[in-house]
Amino acid sequence: MEKLIEEALQEDIGPGDETTFALIPREAMARGSVVAKEEGVLAGVEVAAKVFSIADTGCNIVTRKNDGEKIKVGDTLMVVEGRAAPMLSAERVALNFLQRLSGIATETARYVEAVRGTPVRIVDTRKTAPGLRMLEKYAVRMGGGFNHRFGLYDGILIKDNHLAILRGRGMGCGDAVRLAKSKKTHTLIVEVEVTSLDQVRQAIEAGADALLLDNMEVEEIKAAVKLADGRVLLEASGGINLGNVRKVAETGVDLISIGAITHSAPSLDMSLEIEPI
Amino acid sequence: MEKLIEEALQEDIGPGDETTFALIPREAMARGSVVAKEEGVLAGVEVAAKVFSIADTGCNIVTRKNDGEKIKVGDTLMVVEGRAAPMLSAERVALNFLQRLSGIATETARYVEAVRGTPVRIVDTRKTAPGLRMLEKYAVRMGGGFNHRFGLYDGILIKDNHLAILRGRGMGCGDAVRLAKSKKTHTLIVEVEVTSLDQVRQAIEAGADALLLDNMEVEEIKAAVKLADGRVLLEASGGINLGNVRKVAETGVDLISIGAITHSAPSLDMSLEIEPI
Amino acid sequence: MEKLIEEALQEDIGPGDETTFALIPREAMARGSVVAKEEGVLAGVEVAAKVFSIADTGCNIVTRKNDGEKIKVGDTLMVVEGRAAPMLSAERVALNFLQRLSGIATETARYVEAVRGTPVRIVDTRKTAPGLRMLEKYAVRMGGGFNHRFGLYDGILIKDNHLAILRGRGMGCGDAVRLAKSKKTHTLIVEVEVTSLDQVRQAIEAGADALLLDNMEVEEIKAAVKLADGRVLLEASGGINLGNVRKVAETGVDLISIGAITHSAPSLDMSLEIEPI
Amino acid sequence: MEKLIEEALQEDIGPGDETTFALIPREAMARGSVVAKEEGVLAGVEVAAKVFSIADTGCNIVTRKNDGEKIKVGDTLMVVEGRAAPMLSAERVALNFLQRLSGIATETARYVEAVRGTPVRIVDTRKTAPGLRMLEKYAVRMGGGFNHRFGLYDGILIKDNHLAILRGRGMGCGDAVRLAKSKKTHTLIVEVEVTSLDQVRQAIEAGADALLLDNMEVEEIKAAVKLADGRVLLEASGGINLGNVRKVAETGVDLISIGAITHSAPSLDMSLEIEPI
Amino acid sequence: MEKLIEEALQEDIGPGDETTFALIPREAMARGSVVAKEEGVLAGVEVAAKVFSIADTGCNIVTRKNDGEKIKVGDTLMVVEGRAAPMLSAERVALNFLQRLSGIATETARYVEAVRGTPVRIVDTRKTAPGLRMLEKYAVRMGGGFNHRFGLYDGILIKDNHLAILRGRGMGCGDAVRLAKSKKTHTLIVEVEVTSLDQVRQAIEAGADALLLDNMEVEEIKAAVKLADGRVLLEASGGINLGNVRKVAETGVDLISIGAITHSAPSLDMSLEIEPI
Amino acid sequence: MEKLIEEALQEDIGPGDETTFALIPREAMARGSVVAKEEGVLAGVEVAAKVFSIADTGCNIVTRKNDGEKIKVGDTLMVVEGRAAPMLSAERVALNFLQRLSGIATETARYVEAVRGTPVRIVDTRKTAPGLRMLEKYAVRMGGGFNHRFGLYDGILIKDNHLAILRGRGMGCGDAVRLAKSKKTHTLIVEVEVTSLDQVRQAIEAGADALLLDNMEVEEIKAAVKLADGRVLLEASGGINLGNVRKVAETGVDLISIGAITHSAPSLDMSLEIEPI
Repeated sequence: MEKLIEEALQEDIGPGDETTFALIPREAMARGSVVAKEEGVLAGVEVAAKVFSIADTGCNIVTRKNDGEKIKVGDTLMVVEGRAAPMLSAERVALNFLQRLSGIATETARYVEAVRGTPVRIVDTRKTAPGLRMLEKYAVRMGGGFNHRFGLYDGILIKDNHLAILRGRGMGCGDAVRLAKSKKTHTLIVEVEVTSLDQVRQAIEAGADALLLDNMEVEEIKAAVKLADGRVLLEASGGINLGNVRKVAETGVDLISIGAITHSAPSLDMSLEIEPI
Repeated sequence: MEKLIEEALQEDIGPGDETTFALIPREAMARGSVVAKEEGVLAGVEVAAKVFSIADTGCNIVTRKNDGEKIKVGDTLMVVEGRAAPMLSAERVALNFLQRLSGIATETARYVEAVRGTPVRIVDTRKTAPGLRMLEKYAVRMGGGFNHRFGLYDGILIKDNHLAILRGRGMGCGDAVRLAKSKKTHTLIVEVEVTSLDQVRQAIEAGADALLLDNMEVEEIKAAVKLADGRVLLEASGGINLGNVRKVAETGVDLISIGAITHSAPSLDMSLEIEPI
Repeated sequence: MEKLIEEALQEDIGPGDETTFALIPREAMARGSVVAKEEGVLAGVEVAAKVFSIADTGCNIVTRKNDGEKIKVGDTLMVVEGRAAPMLSAERVALNFLQRLSGIATETARYVEAVRGTPVRIVDTRKTAPGLRMLEKYAVRMGGGFNHRFGLYDGILIKDNHLAILRGRGMGCGDAVRLAKSKKTHTLIVEVEVTSLDQVRQAIEAGADALLLDNMEVEEIKAAVKLADGRVLLEASGGINLGNVRKVAETGVDLISIGAITHSAPSLDMSLEIEPI
Repeated sequence: MEKLIEEALQEDIGPGDETTFALIPREAMARGSVVAKEEGVLAGVEVAAKVFSIADTGCNIVTRKNDGEKIKVGDTLMVVEGRAAPMLSAERVALNFLQRLSGIATETARYVEAVRGTPVRIVDTRKTAPGLRMLEKYAVRMGGGFNHRFGLYDGILIKDNHLAILRGRGMGCGDAVRLAKSKKTHTLIVEVEVTSLDQVRQAIEAGADALLLDNMEVEEIKAAVKLADGRVLLEASGGINLGNVRKVAETGVDLISIGAITHSAPSLDMSLEIEPI
Repeated sequence: MEKLIEEALQEDIGPGDETTFALIPREAMARGSVVAKEEGVLAGVEVAAKVFSIADTGCNIVTRKNDGEKIKVGDTLMVVEGRAAPMLSAERVALNFLQRLSGIATETARYVEAVRGTPVRIVDTRKTAPGLRMLEKYAVRMGGGFNHRFGLYDGILIKDNHLAILRGRGMGCGDAVRLAKSKKTHTLIVEVEVTSLDQVRQAIEAGADALLLDNMEVEEIKAAVKLADGRVLLEASGGINLGNVRKVAETGVDLISIGAITHSAPSLDMSLEIEPI
Repeated sequence: MEKLIEEALQEDIGPGDETTFALIPREAMARGSVVAKEEGVLAGVEVAAKVFSIADTGCNIVTRKNDGEKIKVGDTLMVVEGRAAPMLSAERVALNFLQRLSGIATETARYVEAVRGTPVRIVDTRKTAPGLRMLEKYAVRMGGGFNHRFGLYDGILIKDNHLAILRGRGMGCGDAVRLAKSKKTHTLIVEVEVTSLDQVRQAIEAGADALLLDNMEVEEIKAAVKLADGRVLLEASGGINLGNVRKVAETGVDLISIGAITHSAPSLDMSLEIEPI
């Protein structure tokens, strides 16, 4: 995380913050308060604190709200005291992390709220901003969601495009599952994307551990749940939004994955208010 | 850009794509088509092409649409031919870049369209995803927008927080402008954030080159335009959305900056369809 | 892999190969043959080829044996033709990779041979040389072994030290398994280290997917196999060597993990023989 | 060294230690003792300490044995107190360094012991694990050995392959020595690999400072010692093992280089025992 | 800056300071005083302090003179107390930074002194040592000079070579200025290199903000000043040295840029005197 | 070298060359000629070529003069043909390398010329620009000089400050030499800095291989040469310039080291002349 923050500061400050350099005396001290301008769920307060402390190792930071907490308009989220110049130079980077991560946590929390009372997990996808996956997946957890695999290395997920290649070699969905089971590291399960009840049946017979039900209608999902009968984990994915997520949750699937909680979550509005001390 | 792509591939693939490794023979060849599933403005097609060519230096890529072009649902945007295994491993990273950048270009284009016929520039802000600023600002240009400064190093923008520190030292907005002019590199202009007509007057008298009119109502902006009378560039900022941007543009300001075109643009939906060859 | 090779070349060559610089004219051309001086299983021939091609992008390389093949004393493994100076400077690094990886493949093959005819997998551990894990695990596969998890991120393995901490909080082996199942990413299984039949029973009842039987005697392993009765994967680990591995394999466990195939495999002897051309 | 350790931790932990994350509360504290399970010579205790302190900057470490000391089965080598979670995540990396380096020190000490009473130096070679040369050469010193050059940049060693290229240009061993002396930095000596008494004579006449006697029989080495008569340093190399090293040492050579002390030293067995505090 | 210093230490120390390692006991403590052996203007004292503190985090440093101060032969500039071994290893790197930067500050101060009493700014160029631009531009400020743009990204400067390309497309100096004004980020001014009074006129009419008068004679510069009449900033450049800089300053230009203050400033002589404590 | 060039380009271009971006069409092609504006010795032409080829992989470069050649005012040194935009963006970096390295080669050649006819080697020091040592030492060789050690790792040089620490422990110059000989890697010689004839005697008796005669007068150097009588290498250092170097050379020393050839060599003037094609 530190490397990421240093690169973000480097990206913004580059060879120097011209405005601050011209105007702010080196010895000027300040207090900066991060204030919420929109309600939501907080995520990234420690990241933001780290931004300020990397910019000015001597600054003093108090966090008033914790990641995962609900915040209201006007809430003071954290207070930084230290040298004014590095605080001004770090402001935008700190807010960029904090607003983005809180936006993701807030959007996730909306889905989690929508399925409250069901045993379904809201899970994320790999549709994250390049370079920020770990932080974005952390924000999903702060919003009450669960993580799907972190990358291609910690989960087997046989997707339509894998099946298309194998079909060209005369292999079906069940063959794919069997092949994966024979070759994979034993610490991973085998999940496979299916688009029909027929594939659901083949995959289960071949020994799949989990199925991703791709873009199925609610009725078809219900049929898949019945057919699976608890033998495999079921993940619904595709075309699911706040309007229909509860219906999908009530079908009895175990997981619902939502790309939008990371790739399209709007930023949560906040500002830094600085005063001299 | 290459380093960024390599890091994104490393982030997703890590020590290995377990699924592809288990299932796809090394010699299998494939054709992959990136297809639009939503209409909008394309941005990032060369980035996506670079992702595939880094993953498989021997692959062959044809781009069917160019950055900045309007695309419709079902349009084929680019076609990749090469080894199936690296294509599958690179799919998500290529799409993550392409969908995000096209989302930004598309959102920008909506604002540009809304002010069409006025001389106003829609400009971006520094509210970008950490590490991705250059690409996101490129996407803004592809959507017809203009870039504000890239970072703290290539523009002087005296903001409320700078003024707050200086106020604590008995200096006003005009003093700040004068100080900046005396100390800055001569290749940069001096822009200052103002919140009242009084500050507009002081800043102009002190020799500011541009003013950022922060969160002003349309009527106040009009008064500022009249007061400035062409002596400085005027940038409207804060609280501007697709519903009111035209009204703001018609006040006569030169620039309108919109954070949401980068920090809250939803991803544009696309998919990669792979077939064996 | 390229970064690793570049760092290894940098480590050996540093600011310059003083001997080659003083003696070998820039235009001198040479043929270099890598020859086996010991019998075993080859691994790393593509890594070695990459070393030479990074040192001299214009060189021509023919590999005569493939990774995973058995090699005999005197076999020519690969032939490089190109400029003499970079070939001399790259020699040691290429051999260091090739001899080390072939040593691991060879040691692994001895264990695989010893259990031939049983369905047991010989698997590796995380006891690898820092920085070289991916290559060493690749060498294990070339020797006929299978990989255990690559790191702490792609497998759940609850070990004695985790259980010790949890015991201090009043939790037993079964509680640990249940907690892990409730919190883990769904793409990973839960494996737990057990040291007694009682723990075997608790772990299975709590829903563990795999058990690591730590340092158990052959008779105790047999009892565990009987008790598990196919409900979980069983991995034998600790105190297993070429002398007793067959006995352990015949107990009916699914996996036998051997740290020594990576942490103590002796290098396989080879040399590079260069002649002018 | 810090960069190396950070990369090793990154290699093992990657995006996260899934087991520890799922099971160990953030506030849990622990004491971990590294205990020897085999006798030998310790090396790397400060490296291991650094691993733990990088993983948890607040931990408290006491080393009970120093690098270079002999250790017995059951000896506690170091004790770490701090947060349980990072200690568990760092365990394997710390042990991988410590066991490998102690393995090298122990193997080196066997050779040093074997030549005790003679003035011979046991020296290492460049046959080290890529990326770990400095640490492995440090371990050789801890075992009582001496270092040969660190890389191609801090020593001139004209080897058979250099001579082969020069032979193709009509130059012999003596010419090579003279050429090297005329071109080299004055801070380095010239050492040359020789395989016959005739070459010994030529090299000395040409002004060589040291000779590497390659794969010579003991009698031939004795003749070389007599011929050299103290005018140059003599290094015996090739085909030397614990069985014959004393005989070689008694010939009167100055240095004996042994590749196996780095490339084939078995790991020294140790474990980390953690308890809650 | 820290990364730069670490790389410089790595460049000098590499795998180890052989002399210090062989001679200086680890526990030896020392006091080192940096003493001026030439008079001039100091720059880089904090950089040098950082070198010592990176080499030995526990050392104690007192700076006796500040950057920008005039120093005389024999002045003690800073005193370091700490472990002798890292102080010896860091000596050369610290002095290399300090002597080079002080050399630049001293040369700059000579030019600043030569134009004292005029309102002209002495500014630097991009003719800096690769990798050291920020530090060298800092040294220019310490010598009383001002910085021109830091790189190609924070200033528009249309040079002869740009104009040559545009001429091939039928565009003149005025067209270039207009094109730049229509496309540039609004935070930057447009400066253009001119070589004749005719170009001065065209550039001003096209709206240029600043002109670089390239290699003009003093009389021609005077004519340009008269022609410009305060409408644009004027920078004289090329062929200016300590002998004629005052004459150029008295023409009424705003800025005089001098490449030699960075690319040809001789090092300022200093030494480190170490004594045991 | 590539990494260094990439960093230099990044330093200058940063997020983008604003001028070229605004003015030069992507498809514009150009020919650029590097022309000497001062006479001297060329060094760095391949570095400059690499700068252009990294900036535009498709460009075509012909070098007209080689490193080490004498060049006259007006000579064309190299010609680049390719896309105009990257050529313009790379111009300054290419020239910065080329002018600096040629400046060093030219200054070195002046000293080499001054001692022509004597057997003395002009050698460099470690007083180089941080990060550029390898290139600067290469330029010294191009100017006819020789390199001293590259860093602290490839040479033993016991300096006054080492002796000061050892003196505090009751050890003299001879003790230091003996200690270094007993501990050093056998591939390095022992050189020691001496300031009096008495130290010369002690060092030789202790077995030093080379002496650095620090700041001695010509008469004292002559006495040292006589005293040494060919038993050790002698290096004169300190206070030597073009005015007295010949006198020093004629004393019979083997090496004369000159810091100024790297730390104070003025840049050699050149320019890039671009025309459209």
